[in-house]
Amino acid sequence: MKKKYINSEDIALLEKQERVHLINSLGGFKSVSLIGTKSNDNSTNLAIFSSVLHLGASPALIALIFRPSPPERDTLRNILDSGYYTINHINESMYKKAHQTSARYDSDISEFDAVGLTPEYKKNFQAPFVKESHIQLGIQFKEKIDITINNTIMVIGEIVAIYIPKNCLNEDGFIDIEKANTITCSGLDSYHATRKLDRLSYAKPGKELTSISSLNKK
Amino acid sequence: MKKKYINSEDIALLEKQERVHLINSLGGFKSVSLIGTKSNDNSTNLAIFSSVLHLGASPALIALIFRPSPPERDTLRNILDSGYYTINHINESMYKKAHQTSARYDSDISEFDAVGLTPEYKKNFQAPFVKESHIQLGIQFKEKIDITINNTIMVIGEIVAIYIPKNCLNEDGFIDIEKANTITCSGLDSYHATRKLDRLSYAKPGKELTSISSLNKK
Repeated sequence: MKKKYINSEDIALLEKQERVHLINSLGGFKSVSLIGTKSNDNSTNLAIFSSVLHLGASPALIALIFRPSPPERDTLRNILDSGYYTINHINESMYKKAHQTSARYDSDISEFDAVGLTPEYKKNFQAPFVKESHIQLGIQFKEKIDITINNTIMVIGEIVAIYIPKNCLNEDGFIDIEKANTITCSGLDSYHATRKLDRLSYAKPGKELTSISSLNKK
Repeated sequence: MKKKYINSEDIALLEKQERVHLINSLGGFKSVSLIGTKSNDNSTNLAIFSSVLHLGASPALIALIFRPSPPERDTLRNILDSGYYTINHINESMYKKAHQTSARYDSDISEFDAVGLTPEYKKNFQAPFVKESHIQLGIQFKEKIDITINNTIMVIGEIVAIYIPKNCLNEDGFIDIEKANTITCSGLDSYHATRKLDRLSYAKPGKELTSISSLNKK
């Protein structure tokens, strides 16, 4: 493939929207999910995020980056006020509705109603899950870290509730999120389904890699 | 899909490796790339990471999470010592070699040689790119943030050099990373190619979403 070279000066000279598209594409494929929250006066909010990041397994921590823009402020305030939120994987049948949650609706409008997704309350968890989502996580807020270099905020939460399709849990703990129809995204607005290549064995020096077979958890 | 419910107590009771697989799967699909570095005594190092995260476009910042485990220590030390590193997208033709870099080779062994990938030096950038990679980024170290809650470290860098296939750059700045054969991963060891669903227009309240056509940059 014939390559184009772009340096810092070229990046600085780009028109703002072009730079946003370009730089956003460079990080590779991203997780994309819906964050469900509820405000102190019981208004629900639903927002799409492509910055969810696995942080560690013990304790089970997951991080999320907030930019200082208005639509994200409702979600952040609800998380800080209530201490709880949900992360819901997006599948092929709902990604257009999920994308529509990024429109700048007024604070008193629930994105659930506006885009046609269903809030679901389960086992006394106070934040709403998305009923149409196949993998749903209940998260307890733990810590907020200010990233001063560009005024973003990292919110760290602990996974305290997990709902996954029974037939997607493998016996070694791996969840086959492709089988659960979870999709991925790239850049600001590009959505992609996946096609599994392989699961590879734990790598050791001088040892040939093998495929890990998918055995469903009994 | 019939769902299984897992709560905090269930998670705590899982055997360690099972918990690692389970929690790692929950964040959704992840970017997966190779980080190339060079030590002060000119040894090269190459390591696979699935924690690369777009942080912002102005300035063009990209983040990376380090766990406190030994194989990652070489990469972190080289970044802090030299101030530069490369991020190289992984494609279908090289993902097994990329996975093999996660084996615990001794510090004096270059993973480039061990797994059969080719270091490439370009335009006086001091860290090695991966020649087999179609999207290559040169990064200048900016800041290190200690995440004390689980002893991980976030390293933030600025994108100062970009090499992308000419035919993958769209006229609005979007890079078609699927066309560049970039793959994604889930969990610790599962690799996936992608199938584009659509690019969706900027969402506004009450406005129908449309597809964004892919026009190559002239």
